[in-house]
Amino acid sequence: MARSKATLRTWLGCPGLLGCFLLGFLAGWFTKPTDRTPDSSDVYPNVRQKLVAEMKAENIKQFLRSFTKLPHLAGTEQNLLLAKQIQGQWKEFGLDSAELIHYDVLLSYPNETQPNYISIVDDQGNEIFNTSLSEPPPQGYENVTDILPPYNAFSAQGVPEADLVYVNYGRTEDFFKLERDMGINCTGKIVIARYGKIFRGNKVKNAILAGAQGIILYSDPADYCAPGVDAYPGGWNLPGGGVQRGNVLNLNGAGDPLTPGYPAKEYTFRYKVNEGVGIPKIPVHPIGYHDAEVLLRAMGGPAAPDSSWKGTLNVSYNVGPGFADSFATRKVRMHVHTNNKITRIYNTIGILRGAVEPDRYIILGGHRDSWVFGGIDPTTGAAVLQEIVRSFGKMKLEGWRPRRTIIFASWDAEEFGLLGSTEWAEILSPDEGYENKSLYESWLDKDPATENNSFPRINKLGSGSDFEAYFQRLGIASGRVRYTKNRKADKFSNYPVYHTVYETFELVEKFYDPTFKKQLTIAQLRGKLVYELADSQVIPFDCRHYGEALKQHSNRIYKLAKKHEEQMKLYKVSFDSLFSAVVNFSKAAAEFHRRLEEVNKKDPIAVRIMNDQLMFLERAFIDPLGLPGRKFYRHIIFAPSSHNKYAGESFPGIYDAMFDIESKAAQQEAWEEVKRQISVAAFTVQAAAGTLKEVA
Amino acid sequence: MARSKATLRTWLGCPGLLGCFLLGFLAGWFTKPTDRTPDSSDVYPNVRQKLVAEMKAENIKQFLRSFTKLPHLAGTEQNLLLAKQIQGQWKEFGLDSAELIHYDVLLSYPNETQPNYISIVDDQGNEIFNTSLSEPPPQGYENVTDILPPYNAFSAQGVPEADLVYVNYGRTEDFFKLERDMGINCTGKIVIARYGKIFRGNKVKNAILAGAQGIILYSDPADYCAPGVDAYPGGWNLPGGGVQRGNVLNLNGAGDPLTPGYPAKEYTFRYKVNEGVGIPKIPVHPIGYHDAEVLLRAMGGPAAPDSSWKGTLNVSYNVGPGFADSFATRKVRMHVHTNNKITRIYNTIGILRGAVEPDRYIILGGHRDSWVFGGIDPTTGAAVLQEIVRSFGKMKLEGWRPRRTIIFASWDAEEFGLLGSTEWAEILSPDEGYENKSLYESWLDKDPATENNSFPRINKLGSGSDFEAYFQRLGIASGRVRYTKNRKADKFSNYPVYHTVYETFELVEKFYDPTFKKQLTIAQLRGKLVYELADSQVIPFDCRHYGEALKQHSNRIYKLAKKHEEQMKLYKVSFDSLFSAVVNFSKAAAEFHRRLEEVNKKDPIAVRIMNDQLMFLERAFIDPLGLPGRKFYRHIIFAPSSHNKYAGESFPGIYDAMFDIESKAAQQEAWEEVKRQISVAAFTVQAAAGTLKEVA
Repeated sequence: MARSKATLRTWLGCPGLLGCFLLGFLAGWFTKPTDRTPDSSDVYPNVRQKLVAEMKAENIKQFLRSFTKLPHLAGTEQNLLLAKQIQGQWKEFGLDSAELIHYDVLLSYPNETQPNYISIVDDQGNEIFNTSLSEPPPQGYENVTDILPPYNAFSAQGVPEADLVYVNYGRTEDFFKLERDMGINCTGKIVIARYGKIFRGNKVKNAILAGAQGIILYSDPADYCAPGVDAYPGGWNLPGGGVQRGNVLNLNGAGDPLTPGYPAKEYTFRYKVNEGVGIPKIPVHPIGYHDAEVLLRAMGGPAAPDSSWKGTLNVSYNVGPGFADSFATRKVRMHVHTNNKITRIYNTIGILRGAVEPDRYIILGGHRDSWVFGGIDPTTGAAVLQEIVRSFGKMKLEGWRPRRTIIFASWDAEEFGLLGSTEWAEILSPDEGYENKSLYESWLDKDPATENNSFPRINKLGSGSDFEAYFQRLGIASGRVRYTKNRKADKFSNYPVYHTVYETFELVEKFYDPTFKKQLTIAQLRGKLVYELADSQVIPFDCRHYGEALKQHSNRIYKLAKKHEEQMKLYKVSFDSLFSAVVNFSKAAAEFHRRLEEVNKKDPIAVRIMNDQLMFLERAFIDPLGLPGRKFYRHIIFAPSSHNKYAGESFPGIYDAMFDIESKAAQQEAWEEVKRQISVAAFTVQAAAGTLKEVA
Repeated sequence: MARSKATLRTWLGCPGLLGCFLLGFLAGWFTKPTDRTPDSSDVYPNVRQKLVAEMKAENIKQFLRSFTKLPHLAGTEQNLLLAKQIQGQWKEFGLDSAELIHYDVLLSYPNETQPNYISIVDDQGNEIFNTSLSEPPPQGYENVTDILPPYNAFSAQGVPEADLVYVNYGRTEDFFKLERDMGINCTGKIVIARYGKIFRGNKVKNAILAGAQGIILYSDPADYCAPGVDAYPGGWNLPGGGVQRGNVLNLNGAGDPLTPGYPAKEYTFRYKVNEGVGIPKIPVHPIGYHDAEVLLRAMGGPAAPDSSWKGTLNVSYNVGPGFADSFATRKVRMHVHTNNKITRIYNTIGILRGAVEPDRYIILGGHRDSWVFGGIDPTTGAAVLQEIVRSFGKMKLEGWRPRRTIIFASWDAEEFGLLGSTEWAEILSPDEGYENKSLYESWLDKDPATENNSFPRINKLGSGSDFEAYFQRLGIASGRVRYTKNRKADKFSNYPVYHTVYETFELVEKFYDPTFKKQLTIAQLRGKLVYELADSQVIPFDCRHYGEALKQHSNRIYKLAKKHEEQMKLYKVSFDSLFSAVVNFSKAAAEFHRRLEEVNKKDPIAVRIMNDQLMFLERAFIDPLGLPGRKFYRHIIFAPSSHNKYAGESFPGIYDAMFDIESKAAQQEAWEEVKRQISVAAFTVQAAAGTLKEVA
C-alpha cells in the first residue's frame, strides 16, 4: 500500500504540520543557539553528537543486504521470520523491550492453480493473445521460490469480456473528459488506465462509478522510463515485462476491511467479505508495457482527445503472427481468480523508556512487508530504522535515557508517522553537485516550495502510508521525511521499478545509493529528529507556523470559491467566520509563544502543561463526526484527496462540497452544504485557538 | 429538561462511576486516615474544616428567596438579569473571573395569542368541553406576570381530532401490551398517557411509532398525590389544576436541535427546524388531573388489561351538565400553537484558578433556568451552589488556592456533572429520625443498593440532566449527588408539584426543608467533594471498583442473554471475550493501585502521570463511532436507556441488540449484531485495561 516517489524512502514520526515545526525549529537554531533549557543533555552532554557519529553507512548496507535476500510479503512465513529476527536484534541493541504484536486481517493472494491474465478474443471467442503470467526474474534470483506473480490485491474475481476503453490515468477529470466532452460511455466496458498521477484505488473507484465491468492497469513508458536510461538491470528503468503490484482498496481510513474502527484481534467481530469496506466489486489486473502495447494496438490505439492523453508506447515489440489493426473489433477477456483471506500479520514493537516523562511517546516506524524483495520499498527505510535503533541502543547501554519514551516500530502491512522535527541544517548533503552544501540548501534548491522560494517544499500530508490512521483519524501530530526526486529535473511519478520484482538490493547498490551515504544521511536526520522530540525539555514545535499555514490554506479555498462569485452572492456564502477564526488562531499562537518564553523552566508541571498544549494542538483539529461520507478521516484541515488518496487536500470538507458544484441539480442545497462546511471549519479553527490560551 | 425525584435536588461534579469513587474513597478514609500525601493543606491546614464551617443554612435560604421571586424561563430577560446578578456576586466572592457565555439555541414557547388546549367535541363538531388555559396561581404570586401556561416544549403545531386511546405510562411495554395482547391499533388516534416512570420524550416517541396523531400527557393522582397529604398550599401534593411542563425532544445527546455536534454560536450553520434533531412531528399537550378525569370519563374510562394500568382518578369533580358515559362516542380535538424560536441563552462561568495544575479542572454546576419559579428545580441547587462559591471565594481571599482549577457553572437550559468524591462519612445527617447518625448511615438505611445491603444505592448515570454531554458523549468522569426520596417509603415518581407553578420558595420553606439544613448538608457535601478532587495530590478515585462494576454489569447482561439459550447455541454467541476483558481490567486496576502506593510522591511528574491515568480512564470507554443510531451516546458501558432517557442502561449496545429480539424476522442477522456488540464491548474494556498499565 505504501508508495515511494524516488531514490530513497524513509518516513518517521515527524511534524503533521511538518512545515510548522521544521521551520520553527530552524529559526530557533540560528537565532539563539545557547538559550537551551536544562535536560538530560546536560548530564550526558555528548549524546547528540555521539548518536550521529555512531551511525555507519556500512551497517545500513549490511541490513539492506540481509533483509532483501528473500520476498517478505505480508502474511508469509518469511515475513514472520524477519519480524522475529528484527525483534531479537532490537533486544540485543539494548531496547527495554521488543515484542511481536499480531492481528488477523483480510489479505489477498493470487490463486495458485488458476493464474490471472488478460486475453484478446476473436469473434469466435478464441483467445488469440494472453498477457504474461509472471515477470522475468532478475539475475541471481532465478531460483527464489515464493515470488508471487503481479496482481492487484483485493481485486474481485471474475472473467468479464467486453470492448476495451482507454481512460488515460483514470482520474476524475479523465472520466469527465470521456463522458462529457467525448460522449464515450464506459458502462459494461473493460477500461484500461495507465499507472501514475493518483493512487490506483481511486482509478478503480472511478471505473466502477463509470459503470465499467473490469479495469486493467499498466505502466506506460512515458511514466516509467526516463530518457537515456537503460531498463533494469542495465539501468534503473522499468523493463517491458515488469509489472507494478499494489492494492486497489478504497478504505478511506478504515483499516482492515472486515473490522472497521476496531483492531482485528481474535475476539473481534468480522463482517463478511461482501460487506467489507472499500473492496472493489470488479476485477482489476496490472500488466507491463509490452503486454499493454498489444492490447492498445488491438483496440486501434487510444482515442485521445489531445496529445497529453497519449502514453509513449514506443518500445519495439513483436506481437507475432495474426495481429493487425483490425484488432479494434476484438474484445478483451480478463481472468482474475485472486482470493481474499484472513491472515495473521506481525508488528515488531520496541521500546526505549523515557526517564522523566515515560508516558509521552515519540514513535518512529516503517513497514517491513514488501511485494517481492522490497529493495527500495520498504527496505531502505527498514535498514535505516535498524541502524537508528542500534545507535539509540548503544547510548542507552552507556547509561543514557531520553526524557520521553521512544517507540520503534517495524510494521507489517501498516505504517505510520509522527509529527517531528529536525536539526538538519548542520548535516552535510550527500547529493552529487551539493558537496559541502547543507542538506537544507540542497533541499531548497531541488524542491522549493511553490509560493515562496525561501523555504523548501513541505507537502500536505495525504495518505498512502500509515501515518494516516494517526494523523487523519486520531489527530496525532505526524509526518514523514524522505529522500525523493529532484522535482525540477525528474517528471516521472515514481521510481520506475516500484513494486516490481526488480526492486532488489543491487538496484540500490548499483544505481540509487552506491555509497549508502544518502541512507546514512536520512538515518542521521531521523535519529536527530527523534532525539530532539524525545529529549528537549520544551517540545520543539512552533505553532505560529500552523497559523501561517491556516492563513494560506484558507486564502486558497476562498480563491476557489470566488470562481462562483454570483452563486456566493445569491446564496449568501461568506468565509468571514473562517478568516476571523484564523486570525484568532494566529493571535493565540503568538501569545502562546510569548508565554512559553516566560515560563519557569524549573517548574516541571508548568513546562509539562505547555508541552501538553503543543502536543494536543493537532488533536483539536479532529472532528469526531468525521468528514462527509468518510467517517475515519476526521481532520478538518487536511485529508487525503477524495480524488487521489496519495495527495493531501486542505479544508477537505469545503473543497469536496464545492467540487464540480456547477453540475449539481439542487444548487440551493449544494451551497447550503458549502456553508455548513465553512461553519464546521471556522468552529474547529476557533476551538484549536482556544486550546492555546493560558490555562484556567 | 431536568428532573427531580424528591425532597431536594442538587447535582454536581461527582463520580461518573459514582460508586467506584465514593466507595473507594470511603475505604481509604477509614483504613488509613493519616497516610496523606503533601498538598496545599499542609500550608493551609484548616481549609477543609474552614470551608465547611463557612457555609450557613441562613445564606442558602436567602439565596433561594432571592432567586425564586420571579419566573426565570430560559431565553427571557429575567433569566439574563439573574445570570448577571450571579456573575456579579461570584466576582464579589473572590473568584478569579466570572463571565457570561451565550449561545443561540432553538427554544419553544406557547403562542401568546392562540392558547393551547384540548376539547371534547360532539358529533356536530361542537367543542363541549375545553381544558383549562392556565394553572390557578399560588397565593402571593397572583400579580406576577410572565408566567407561561403549561405546555410541552417543542410540540408540533396542529389541531388533530380523533378518538382517544389510553396508553397507561406510554412505555414500550405498554404499547406492546396494547398492540400485541389487546389488539388495539393506535394509528390515527390521539393517545393519552400518564406522566411518570419514564422520560416524557420517550412516551411521545412511542406514540409516534404507534402511529398516533397526537398525545396528551397528564398527572395521575396515583403518581402525584401521596396519601394523607393535602394539595398545595395546604400540603405538598399536586392540586387538580396543576400541570407538569417539560420538553418532549428525543435528542439522543445532540444538544441544540439545529446545530448537532457544534456550539450554537453566531457563525454556526443551522439546519431548518423541520430538519432538526429529535423534534416530534405530532402535537403534544399536558393537562392536570381535573381535566384528565373529564377526558377519561368521556372515553368511558381506561380499557385497562389489569389493575396496574388504572390510575386513581378518585378526586370528586363536577363535570357540569351534558356530560355522561355516552361520551365514549365523542372525539377529542387538540389545539396546539406552540412556536419554536432561536433564542439567546447565557451560562455564567466562574473560575478559581489552580495553583499547581491549573490545566486540570473540577467542574461544579447546576442550571439556573426554571419553568416558573423553580422553587425546587433548579433553585435549591442554584442556592446551594451560590453558598459553595461564596465559601471557596472566602478561602481564596485569605490566600489559599486549590491545587487544580475549579470551574463553577450556572447553566441556562443545560446542566452537567463531573466525576467526584466525597468525604461524607463525617457529615451528620439532617434527616428526622437520624439525628446523630451519619449521612452515610441514613443513606444506607433509606436507599440501600439492591444487590448488597452493605452499600447504599448508587444509580447508573442515565440522562435528563446535562452531565449527559460530558459523560455520555465525551467520557469525562461525571456524577450527581442529590437528596432524594426514601425509596422504602415513597413510591411516587417525582415530587408532586414538579414543573408546576406551585414550585415556590414557600413549598421548600414550609414542607421540604424548613431549617434549610438538608440544603446545607448538600452544600457541605458538594463543597468537600470539590475540595478533595481539586486539592488532593493523588486524585481520590479507586478504579478497582470500576472493575467490580464491570463484573456485575457483564454478569447481568449475560443473564439476560441466557434467556435465549437455544439461539445462543445455534448462532454461536459467546460472552467469553467480554468476561476475559473484565478479568484483565480488574487485574490491571489492582496492579495500578499497587504501583500508586509505591509512586514517589515527591516527583511531581510521576504523580501527574498516574493522576492522568485515573482521570482519562473514563475516556477509554468512549467509542468514537457511537452506539447504533445514537452517535452522540458514545460510552460503551453506560448510556441513557433507549426506552427511558432518565434511566441508565449498562452495556447498552448489547442490551439494545437483544431487546425484543425474539420478535425479529431475520434471526441470524439479529444475533450477528449481538455478537458484534459483544465484540465492541470486549475491545473497549480491554483497551481501558490497557490505559491502566505502567506507562512505557
